[in-house]
Amino acid sequence: MEHRPFPLRLADIVGPEFVKTDHESRLRYGTDALNRGHAADVVVLPADTAQVAAIARLCDDTRTPLVARGGGTGYTGGSVPTRGGVVISLERLNRILDIDEANLIAIVQPNVITGDLQDAVERVGLFYPPDPASLRQSVVGGNVAECAGGPRAFKYGVTKRYVLGLEAVLPTGEIIRTGGKVVKNVVGYDLTQLLVGSEGTLAVLTEITLRLIPKPPVQATLRATFPTVTHAVDAVIRLLRARVVPATIEVVDGERLDAVAGHPGVRSLAPPGTAALLLIEVDGLSEQVGPEADRVATACREAGATELLRARDEAERQELWRVRRELSLSLKTIAPQKFNHDVVVPKARVPELFRLIADLRERFGLRIPSFGHAGDGNIHVNIMVSPDDTDEVRRAHEAEAVLFEGVVALEGAISGEHGIGFAKAAYLGLNLTPDVIALMKRVKAAFDPHGILNPGKMFPDEVTLPHS
Amino acid sequence: MEHRPFPLRLADIVGPEFVKTDHESRLRYGTDALNRGHAADVVVLPADTAQVAAIARLCDDTRTPLVARGGGTGYTGGSVPTRGGVVISLERLNRILDIDEANLIAIVQPNVITGDLQDAVERVGLFYPPDPASLRQSVVGGNVAECAGGPRAFKYGVTKRYVLGLEAVLPTGEIIRTGGKVVKNVVGYDLTQLLVGSEGTLAVLTEITLRLIPKPPVQATLRATFPTVTHAVDAVIRLLRARVVPATIEVVDGERLDAVAGHPGVRSLAPPGTAALLLIEVDGLSEQVGPEADRVATACREAGATELLRARDEAERQELWRVRRELSLSLKTIAPQKFNHDVVVPKARVPELFRLIADLRERFGLRIPSFGHAGDGNIHVNIMVSPDDTDEVRRAHEAEAVLFEGVVALEGAISGEHGIGFAKAAYLGLNLTPDVIALMKRVKAAFDPHGILNPGKMFPDEVTLPHS
Repeated sequence: MEHRPFPLRLADIVGPEFVKTDHESRLRYGTDALNRGHAADVVVLPADTAQVAAIARLCDDTRTPLVARGGGTGYTGGSVPTRGGVVISLERLNRILDIDEANLIAIVQPNVITGDLQDAVERVGLFYPPDPASLRQSVVGGNVAECAGGPRAFKYGVTKRYVLGLEAVLPTGEIIRTGGKVVKNVVGYDLTQLLVGSEGTLAVLTEITLRLIPKPPVQATLRATFPTVTHAVDAVIRLLRARVVPATIEVVDGERLDAVAGHPGVRSLAPPGTAALLLIEVDGLSEQVGPEADRVATACREAGATELLRARDEAERQELWRVRRELSLSLKTIAPQKFNHDVVVPKARVPELFRLIADLRERFGLRIPSFGHAGDGNIHVNIMVSPDDTDEVRRAHEAEAVLFEGVVALEGAISGEHGIGFAKAAYLGLNLTPDVIALMKRVKAAFDPHGILNPGKMFPDEVTLPHS
Repeated sequence: MEHRPFPLRLADIVGPEFVKTDHESRLRYGTDALNRGHAADVVVLPADTAQVAAIARLCDDTRTPLVARGGGTGYTGGSVPTRGGVVISLERLNRILDIDEANLIAIVQPNVITGDLQDAVERVGLFYPPDPASLRQSVVGGNVAECAGGPRAFKYGVTKRYVLGLEAVLPTGEIIRTGGKVVKNVVGYDLTQLLVGSEGTLAVLTEITLRLIPKPPVQATLRATFPTVTHAVDAVIRLLRARVVPATIEVVDGERLDAVAGHPGVRSLAPPGTAALLLIEVDGLSEQVGPEADRVATACREAGATELLRARDEAERQELWRVRRELSLSLKTIAPQKFNHDVVVPKARVPELFRLIADLRERFGLRIPSFGHAGDGNIHVNIMVSPDDTDEVRRAHEAEAVLFEGVVALEGAISGEHGIGFAKAAYLGLNLTPDVIALMKRVKAAFDPHGILNPGKMFPDEVTLPHS
C-alpha cells in the first residue's frame, strides 16, 4: 500500500487542478436536488475514460467509496456520497461525439445536457424524445443511470428505449462496451439495459450510444377540465380505445391547480369546481395530427369535460403548457419543502390513487398537490412541509409510508422515474421480495466485488443516512 | 443423497404420466429448428410454477443439467440439452391468464403460441406487435427467452419492448417476480430486461406480463424494385428523412428472388435485372396511412425504383406479401440445408453487407440468398449446402466465419434475432471482449451458482457440441 496522500494520488491521474478538497466543493459536489447532501472526502474531475478507469482502480485497491456525479439533479440522493470517499464528476466528458443522420444514432459523453442534445438533433430533423423536467440541467449520463422519464414517455417510452450501447468503467477498472450501433442485438446478456437505471451502483458510464427517431413535424395541444379525476381517466381510456396514442397526457389535480392560480403571473386558470385537468398533445405528420386531435376532443367531451381548449397557434400552445410548467415553481407558494414522490400504478387505477391521496390529506392534515403522467399512471405526489414544523414533518413521513403501501396494493411501484437512492431504500421491500433483493445484491457483486461503487444506495440494510 | 431413481423423483413432483424416458421423446424434446439435437436423459412436463421450482431444486441438489423448452423453434440450439440431463417442457403452462383492456396489458403463461395471443388481443382492438416468422409455432416464453424480432420490429421494436414483468424460477428453486403491470418502474435493477434474451441460462420463465398497444386500423403496402441494393437502401434513408416510419421495410436480394421465381405457384415476380426488392408497409389511422404511402412512393421513385406496386385492396396486399412468405419454402429448391444467419449492421451499411455477401458467393462458390429487415439492418444470410457434399459444408463454415468477421468490421452484431445458443458460441468473442464475457459469466453465477441451467450455451469455452 502506497502511503502518498490520496488526493495526491488522484492528482497523479488527472492533474492537480482537477482535484478539489476545499470544504465548499466537497459539499457542493455531494448534494443533489433532494437537498440532503453529504460532503465528499475529495472531488475528482477526469478528462477521459482512461482516467476514470485509473481512478476506479485506485478506489478499488484502497476500498474507497466512489460516487459518480452528472448534473446533480436527482431527487433520491443517487449522487450523494453518504459514506464520503471520492466523488467523480464527469463534467469534462461533455461532448456530443457524433450525430449519425443516416443511421439515426447519436454518440455522446455522459455530461452532455439532455436539452442540448435535443436541440442538436432537432436541428437536423431528428428527435430524442426523453424529456425529464430537469432537461435543461440534467445530463444524458444521469438520465441513463436513473432511467429518466418525462411527459413524452407515454408515446415514446422512457430513456431505456433509446440506449443502444454503453462504454462503462467497472469499479475494478475494466473498460467495457455493451451493445452498439444496431437496434437489434442478441449477443450475450443485455448488460446495456441492466446498466440503465442502475443508479451508479454497477459501473461509471463514459460513453452512450443513443437511438434517434425522425422528428414529428406537427403538434396539436388540447386542454380539458373535469369535475373528478375519474372523469379524466375515463377520457384517457376512451381516447386509447379510439386508437389515438398522444405524445403526452398530463393530469393536474385540483389542489395543484389552486397552487398555480396562487402563483403570480399565471393566467391559464381552470373553471371553478375543476378537480382534474388534462393536457394532451398529439404529434406526427400534418395529415394525421388534425384527425387525432378531433378524436381526443370527442373522447374528452364524451367523458364529461367541463371545458375544452385547443391551441390554434404556437402562442396558444405555449399558454396551455404554461400551467404544467409553472407547477414546480408554484409549489413554493404552498410550503418551502416538498417530499417529491413519483409513484406509478396501472393507468386504470389512477382514480384509486387520487382517492388514496385525498384520504392522506384528510387523515394527516397535509397539503399534497399532485400531477403527473396520466397515460403511464405515473403521478408526482408532493407532500408539502415546513421543515421547522417537526410535527408536520413527522406526519409527512407517516403519510409517505401509507402512500407507498397503498401504491403497492394498487399493483404499482414506489418509483416510476426518480429511482431509489437512499431516500426510498427503506421501502424497497414493499415492491421486491427478499429473494429478489438477494439476487440483485449478487448481481451487484458481479460488477462490484468490493462494494465501492455508490455504496449505501438502493439496498435498505446498507443505507447510511447522511448526517451533514 | 437419495438413491431413488431420478425419473421417479421427478414423477413424485409431477405425476408419472408427465415424465418421459422413451428414446423417441428424449430425442424429439432435445431437437430444435437447428436440427442438431441431442437426447435428454429425461423429459418432464410440470403443471405449475410450484412444480417447476421443485424440479429446479432437485436438479440443483443433484447438479443435473436443466434445459427449459418452449415451442422448440429456435435456430441456435438454445433448447437442445447438449449435456443431457432434464428437459423441462413448459407445454402445460399454455394459458392466457388475462387481457386487461383498460390497462393495455396481457398476462400469459410461457407456452401460449405467439400467434394465438395476437389473435386474442386483436379481437378486442389491441395489438401485440412482435412477429417472428415462427409465430404460428413459437411461444411467448421462447420469444422472450430469445428476444424474438420480426418484420414489424422496425416501427414497433423487438420482444423486449413489450415485456413489463416476469415470474421466473431460479435454478436454486426460488420463485421471483420482476417488474409488474406498470410501464414505468425504476425500483431496483431491471432484471426483467436482463432475463429477456438470456436464452434460458438464468431462470425458467413461468409467467409473462406484456404491454399491448391499440391496434393500428389501416395498412398500406407497397413493393418497389431496384437495380442495386444501394438504390434500395437509399430509398430507406429517403423515406426516413421524409419522416415516415413504416411498420415494416423488408428487403430481398436478387438471388433470393430467383429462388422464389423457381418455386411453383409464385406469381409475384420482379422485373428482370432486379437486384433488390423492398416490401414496405405503413400502418395507423386511415387519415395518416394514405399520405405516408405517398411519401414512401416518392422516396422509392427518387431513389431510382424500376417498378412500384401499391396494393389497392387486401387481396393485392396478400399477393405482395406472398413473395416474402414464400422465401423459406423456396430455399428448398436451392439446396436441402441452410446455415441460417441473422446478422445485423447499422442500416446505412446494408449495401456494404450485401457486397460482402456477393464476395463470399464468389470466393467460396456458394449460393447465399439473403433477405431481411432493411430498416433495422438485420439481414438473414442463408448459406445453402447439400449436407452430403463435405467440401461444400467446409466452405460454408469458412464463409460464415468471414461473414461474422465482416459484420463486426461493419459495426454490426453476429445475431440480431436468433441468439447464440451453441451454434454461434464460438464467435461470441468477435462481438464481446474477454472482460465483458467474464462479467457475463459472473452475472450467470449470480443466478445459477452451480451452472445447471442450460449449460454449454452462449459462452464459447463451455460449449459441448451435440454428438447424436
